[in-house]
Amino acid sequence: MSEKRAEQSGEERLIDRLFRPIAKHPGAFSLMDDAAAIAPPAGHDLILTVDAVISGVHFLPDDPADAVAKKALRVNLSDLAAKGAAPLGALLSLSVPENTGDDWLESFARGLGEDCNAFECPLLGGDMTRTPGALTISITALGSVPSGTMVRRRGARAGDLIVVTGTVGDAALGLRLRRAPDDSVMAKLDDAAKEHLRNRYLLPRPRLALAATLREHVSAAMDVSDGLVGDLAKLAAVSGVHASIDAARVPLSAAARAAVGADDRLIDTVLTGGDDYEIVATVPENRLEPFRAAATKTGNEVTTIGRIEAGEGTTVIGPGGHPIDLKQASFSHF
Amino acid sequence: MSEKRAEQSGEERLIDRLFRPIAKHPGAFSLMDDAAAIAPPAGHDLILTVDAVISGVHFLPDDPADAVAKKALRVNLSDLAAKGAAPLGALLSLSVPENTGDDWLESFARGLGEDCNAFECPLLGGDMTRTPGALTISITALGSVPSGTMVRRRGARAGDLIVVTGTVGDAALGLRLRRAPDDSVMAKLDDAAKEHLRNRYLLPRPRLALAATLREHVSAAMDVSDGLVGDLAKLAAVSGVHASIDAARVPLSAAARAAVGADDRLIDTVLTGGDDYEIVATVPENRLEPFRAAATKTGNEVTTIGRIEAGEGTTVIGPGGHPIDLKQASFSHF
Repeated sequence: MSEKRAEQSGEERLIDRLFRPIAKHPGAFSLMDDAAAIAPPAGHDLILTVDAVISGVHFLPDDPADAVAKKALRVNLSDLAAKGAAPLGALLSLSVPENTGDDWLESFARGLGEDCNAFECPLLGGDMTRTPGALTISITALGSVPSGTMVRRRGARAGDLIVVTGTVGDAALGLRLRRAPDDSVMAKLDDAAKEHLRNRYLLPRPRLALAATLREHVSAAMDVSDGLVGDLAKLAAVSGVHASIDAARVPLSAAARAAVGADDRLIDTVLTGGDDYEIVATVPENRLEPFRAAATKTGNEVTTIGRIEAGEGTTVIGPGGHPIDLKQASFSHF
Repeated sequence: MSEKRAEQSGEERLIDRLFRPIAKHPGAFSLMDDAAAIAPPAGHDLILTVDAVISGVHFLPDDPADAVAKKALRVNLSDLAAKGAAPLGALLSLSVPENTGDDWLESFARGLGEDCNAFECPLLGGDMTRTPGALTISITALGSVPSGTMVRRRGARAGDLIVVTGTVGDAALGLRLRRAPDDSVMAKLDDAAKEHLRNRYLLPRPRLALAATLREHVSAAMDVSDGLVGDLAKLAAVSGVHASIDAARVPLSAAARAAVGADDRLIDTVLTGGDDYEIVATVPENRLEPFRAAATKTGNEVTTIGRIEAGEGTTVIGPGGHPIDLKQASFSHF
């Protein structure tokens, strides 16, 4: 006979120490089962989204691990917000290279736990594995909406106004600053502006507080992840309409204004760079003021940037009415 | 003014051509939205599981792409089966290295589509991105059980019998054969035996037909992915009991018997190697015959291999009552 104690593997010990404390939902079974079980709220649809973030692609290898965890969760929460959904929970698939230290994993788990609490999105389960490749975090987020009320991309109609939350372009400029901190244009920004742009790249702010307001007022919405113009073009295409926006009306932060002021070619980066995680939506004209008022009550400022028309395609009116030659409407991996 | 046609990005074209045809569920919105929406069946719990498979870790780089897709889905369906759940759908997170050809992606999508149909598990949504690292497929599978009936790992009681479906060790031997085809022991196997073992590594067979029977009869269950002994040890630990199995009773295929006959040290590989995707369960003694009869009706043979006792830890009785010195009870990434 051979005795085998129920020794924990390295994998189990790590999960035990790092992730069990943040898997507080009873249906997560303390991560000690093969699957999670949740009872979605009656009369609601389940909203599902998955996004991976990969080292060297979606974040920089020297980004702090806690911020990486938060970004991985938040890009998914941003999708839920744009669909009008409230979070129910998340599943984590974490693929870790051999040379990743325990410090990194500890910081990652701490960041994830903080955001799971902050956004009331409990960790329900996951998978942790070694990879010979790049550190990869794939998160599946689950949310809910009252049955049949998910806010779609499809739904924009001629006459609707195009609105966007917050400010656009900060994250793309922040990434540029991270990659080329000594760039002559970026060097003209003051430290506070640089810090603002860098933070906007590092940490998206999902507009979850706006979810119910979107359900009530907008005809279509999506989150801006691949660039405002390209994402709006997707929304217009699937809605079978033409979208026209006025670049001068696109809301910029003081930092982004300073950057574009220093080199007006950066408007291209602002409009197409992506990583904004703001929400672009279309609103029937007679709903605009109620929508704006309700949004403001939730702490979310919205700006009208254009209009939906019959037809197809997307038009960008440049500052002063001049055309902007956008090199590429949005980021694409392929 | 600058006109931007709603041109599809490379990413959209690929998704359009490869994955849209297999995303038939209405709540997948033809993959043209940010999220999927499904209405889980009333009176049911939602069962959630995620597992990643990575090139060079969970499959070999020269495995056929359609089989890789099927494996990625099936390892998750195996978890659902072990929990007594019926599939509702799946989300795919696919991270693809630059050098992956369109042929590979086409074959991958075809394989995934075939299995989504075969297992009635529609593709609900996903994410596709480039990676500088290894090809990584992370699938989140959703299933359902009548409320409160998920089969847990925790639940085994002293006196319960330990059963396992199908045969154990084939996949681990198949992997060994793939890695060292000229190994002197493996060389003694005939072609049919080699083919059997290789196929069992390549393509797990999730025991979904057994799900309802598990819910009705067993006290605890899990799927065997990291090795029979190690996985059983996890089940025993979380149930607070001792598990004792008789190695001689562990069901082997003819091919595995031939391999162990050629070198009896391979029993270690059989018992701890993993990738079986069979189900190990504990059954109250008076439920054994009804369970076995019901399982047989679903086309699943089950074999009694041991017994749960009071205490803790896991005991393996070797062939002829001799001890087996298992080097490592199960596979661990960390």
